[in-house]
Amino acid sequence: MSSAAFIPPRRILMGPGPSDVAPRVLEAMACPTIGHLDPAFVGLMDEIKRLLQYAFQTENSLTMPVSGPGTAGMETCVVNLLEPGDTIVICQNGVFGNRLKAMAERARATVVSVKDPWGRAVDPENLEAALKATPKARYVAFVHAETSTGALSDAETLAHLARRYDCLTIVDTVTSLGGSRLQVDAWGLDAVYSGTQKCLSCTPGLSPITMSGRALSVVQSRTTPVQSWFMDVGLVIGYWGSGSKRTYHHTAPINALYSLHEALCMLKEEGVENAWVRHRRNHDALQAGLEVLGIQFIVPREERIPQLNAVKVPDGIDEARIRQRLLDEWQIEIGSGLGVLAGKIWRIGLMGYSSRSDNVIAFLSAFGNLLADEGLSVSGREAAQEAQRVLQA
Amino acid sequence: MSSAAFIPPRRILMGPGPSDVAPRVLEAMACPTIGHLDPAFVGLMDEIKRLLQYAFQTENSLTMPVSGPGTAGMETCVVNLLEPGDTIVICQNGVFGNRLKAMAERARATVVSVKDPWGRAVDPENLEAALKATPKARYVAFVHAETSTGALSDAETLAHLARRYDCLTIVDTVTSLGGSRLQVDAWGLDAVYSGTQKCLSCTPGLSPITMSGRALSVVQSRTTPVQSWFMDVGLVIGYWGSGSKRTYHHTAPINALYSLHEALCMLKEEGVENAWVRHRRNHDALQAGLEVLGIQFIVPREERIPQLNAVKVPDGIDEARIRQRLLDEWQIEIGSGLGVLAGKIWRIGLMGYSSRSDNVIAFLSAFGNLLADEGLSVSGREAAQEAQRVLQA
Repeated sequence: MSSAAFIPPRRILMGPGPSDVAPRVLEAMACPTIGHLDPAFVGLMDEIKRLLQYAFQTENSLTMPVSGPGTAGMETCVVNLLEPGDTIVICQNGVFGNRLKAMAERARATVVSVKDPWGRAVDPENLEAALKATPKARYVAFVHAETSTGALSDAETLAHLARRYDCLTIVDTVTSLGGSRLQVDAWGLDAVYSGTQKCLSCTPGLSPITMSGRALSVVQSRTTPVQSWFMDVGLVIGYWGSGSKRTYHHTAPINALYSLHEALCMLKEEGVENAWVRHRRNHDALQAGLEVLGIQFIVPREERIPQLNAVKVPDGIDEARIRQRLLDEWQIEIGSGLGVLAGKIWRIGLMGYSSRSDNVIAFLSAFGNLLADEGLSVSGREAAQEAQRVLQA
Repeated sequence: MSSAAFIPPRRILMGPGPSDVAPRVLEAMACPTIGHLDPAFVGLMDEIKRLLQYAFQTENSLTMPVSGPGTAGMETCVVNLLEPGDTIVICQNGVFGNRLKAMAERARATVVSVKDPWGRAVDPENLEAALKATPKARYVAFVHAETSTGALSDAETLAHLARRYDCLTIVDTVTSLGGSRLQVDAWGLDAVYSGTQKCLSCTPGLSPITMSGRALSVVQSRTTPVQSWFMDVGLVIGYWGSGSKRTYHHTAPINALYSLHEALCMLKEEGVENAWVRHRRNHDALQAGLEVLGIQFIVPREERIPQLNAVKVPDGIDEARIRQRLLDEWQIEIGSGLGVLAGKIWRIGLMGYSSRSDNVIAFLSAFGNLLADEGLSVSGREAAQEAQRVLQA
């Protein structure tokens, strides 16, 4: 059994997450651990809450990081809102919509599925038809940016629809927070969760969530206990709530929270709207370069997530071999497809600190050269030049 | 809203956890993030599993860190084993036994409580009486080292008893792993969870667990789904299982796992048995010094957890004020009481990297001086000298 120090290989993370973490965020993470009830730490928690409110564009007092990955944030929203027998309409257009359904069923809710093709945004008309046909529905859940397919849905329109039918919304913003326009209060979203390892470019392991007053009052008027003690928001807010009095619930992941704080400071310094613009600009450049290479997106242009580009593997190309060569020869990680898209697509991320023009250029050069090497008559240099033109426009 | 870098104050962590993290563990945590499916990371996961098997003294193939704090590990064990209607006997002699009960009830199990006084070990006779009276019991849960009271129970005896009555055991080793003798296989423990922020002296946020073949086969023959999708071991082992093929379940907390690996390397280098001896030796020194100060333990000598010392607040002393002054004037953090012990006890931890002779001496000097300052006729210097004598014996 080895017990030698682990030295990670050099990588450029351009997959579906984690994205590259800025050096100052890594440095923050390595600060000495202090206690989870230390007055200095309680002050940091307050700052993290305020910075998360800024990132989510909300005034919700219940805004905090769940001490687990995005999947734990998803389940936190589902199990706190749903009681056995509740009816929820779930929009499913990829892996994460399906996961929401699995969780809601395990919370013993009745699920009405609204299915849209993988690679397409959620169709508001399909949702409205389901809401009309389901007068018992109390909740609507959907994924803002479907990481498995690269499709961005119109969260504002879907949320307005849900509200018209008197439903609360559960919204997955794992891949959109910090990368695509997201306005929790202006759009009237109710229970929203995200992850730290995508456009916030923080280390993975935390899940920021925010809940509207409407959602919180539903949680507080439950007639059955939340099935998870760990995720019970009513207990967790004893620790993450306001004021100097904090009640121990679980030991917070201190150093991960140092890093989240620093990543949020970076977002604040840049300005969240500027971050949205940056993600869009680098996407436009990548898209232009990929077009030169003859690579096709699986999502129609107006429904694409800028920071997660899902593209078809050309006929005759071994997708795993290209990923392996990108990793081995260029230290670039991109992602494969999930579920029914496994083997058929690549997912190219430009998220957070990884959303940089030099990454776009380096990727297109490397990717184009590898495709040429595998027999396609394309040029990485030309693709990179086209991207450069877009970046300079 | 501030967005300045957070610089934590200097602290010596001698509370109930987190404990001080070694510099090399903090450095490991700050290594650049790589992907959770990167071949290099998969190799690291295998090493972490082997090192955790060593720490737990087990060959269980299902040995891995849950991506959440100890509370998530506790709930993972409870919800994977218990099905609605199952009967479990839970030994409650502190906060964490109570928490096990709350979780088991939320998993819709029938709970039979075995209560022992706070500050005492679990009495095997009480457990046996409950088992005799509960032929339907299929599980026994208990806390090896009750962090809330400082009482260490005889896990080996309790586990043998449980097995005689054909019950599987769920065992909390959050504060014992790496600090007190713990032999999962030799003692026949079934579902065991721990935390990283106590005697492993890693950053908080992960929960190592291990399950025996018997426990795993119960999980695999469930007739109802595990109520938590996030904690469903049957899904998580698709990622943490063996071989090079890993299926995405959630994004692993990469940097936290770097730090866990480094902390486990330190344990391996020291040798787990040597770590047990070190924790005992520093406890003996602290105990001798506290006796000089006239400070009394709430736990009988032979039932004390060496690494977590729960002591009575002397009459007329403001316990919060002493803790505040220790923090402000000496940068030393100790813990207060939980639940019914709030305001009545202090909890002095000597865990992992914090279990050092210089910490024992520094604490006794500071603590004794503060008590003298508050009007007790004691001497910090004499207490420290007594501890020094024990350390040099």
